[in-house]
Amino acid sequence: MSKTTISNSVIRRLPRYYRFLGDLEANGYVRISSRELAEKMGLTASQIRQDFNCFGEFGQQGYGYNVTELRGEIGKILGLDKCTPMILLGAGNLGRALAAHIDFDNRGFKLIGIFDVDPELVGRRVGELEVMSSSSIESFCHENHPIAAILCIPKDDAAKETERLINCGIKAFWNFTHYDLRLSYRGVLVENVHLGDSLTTLSYGLNTMDKK
Amino acid sequence: MSKTTISNSVIRRLPRYYRFLGDLEANGYVRISSRELAEKMGLTASQIRQDFNCFGEFGQQGYGYNVTELRGEIGKILGLDKCTPMILLGAGNLGRALAAHIDFDNRGFKLIGIFDVDPELVGRRVGELEVMSSSSIESFCHENHPIAAILCIPKDDAAKETERLINCGIKAFWNFTHYDLRLSYRGVLVENVHLGDSLTTLSYGLNTMDKK
Repeated sequence: MSKTTISNSVIRRLPRYYRFLGDLEANGYVRISSRELAEKMGLTASQIRQDFNCFGEFGQQGYGYNVTELRGEIGKILGLDKCTPMILLGAGNLGRALAAHIDFDNRGFKLIGIFDVDPELVGRRVGELEVMSSSSIESFCHENHPIAAILCIPKDDAAKETERLINCGIKAFWNFTHYDLRLSYRGVLVENVHLGDSLTTLSYGLNTMDKK
Repeated sequence: MSKTTISNSVIRRLPRYYRFLGDLEANGYVRISSRELAEKMGLTASQIRQDFNCFGEFGQQGYGYNVTELRGEIGKILGLDKCTPMILLGAGNLGRALAAHIDFDNRGFKLIGIFDVDPELVGRRVGELEVMSSSSIESFCHENHPIAAILCIPKDDAAKETERLINCGIKAFWNFTHYDLRLSYRGVLVENVHLGDSLTTLSYGLNTMDKK
């Protein structure tokens, strides 16, 4: 099973399949056909079959999919059975909200440390963690070996802090800054969330709608 | 200039162009060639020219683009000269963080109301606004005519609240819930931000990286 040929759009659909299957499971579904799943998700049955075929054989022709098994398989592909240690840089409004809001455990991660430069935030409790001073990142990483980091820091600090984190062994970034990590570090794994761009896209949609 | 033929991926790139041009402007750039802009953004010059051609003629052959003019044109296409009234449903951690963190004014919107069902949150100040009870949404909308809404509410409440908002005249949703609005309301404008799916995608990347 070669993973190198799987398109980005298929990968982007996997978390959504996983979510939908979780809802179906919670609602007592045991089996589902690709046609029924397609209807519920607003996709076509052939797209679903094609997507799943990228990862091997999940269903049995004519019998549909076992919901729990399929969800488990997709979860494994997504690495949700893992528990990758992750740190958060930036305990401002957004950082604190993510720490409190996101269900890291069910997404393949464990949040083990939160850091900020602001002395007023250091020592503050966020969920089960206490915000630490950014100056202790190196010693913390040396002891605890986090692999992933969330960046919720100002754009101007992002270049310097990213380099520091990469030197500390961080391999994956969940990037909420507008700093374009990928342009500087092509080998590093980056998932960008540009909230501002997302809102701007909504503005574009409204603007276009007005002119129709 | 027909807008109907513009692909989604071009539209998705527009906010990024707008951001980069803002940085260039701040750094004193007056003109830039498509080649130079392409290098800075990790794109190709021909892609940039093709993208801009979707919206008409911006540059003059051989002279590059005037940075301020181009940024202004893209801003107008994105509707950033507008100030669409927007409300927020859900003043939990994430909702409050968005209200405090997002620069609505420069994204084409103005946040004019925040609502929550939780009596403990009602009356609490978030930035310049005070959280109002969800029961007053109808009267507020009747008076203030918001066009857009941010959904930061639990998934189970989303279907009911969405219908309510649509009845109140809301035409565009910035949706942070996992409720699939588009499946029920095909005519409504929706921009989804699935933070959990985004983190899951990062998990997939790490999981695939491990196996290489």
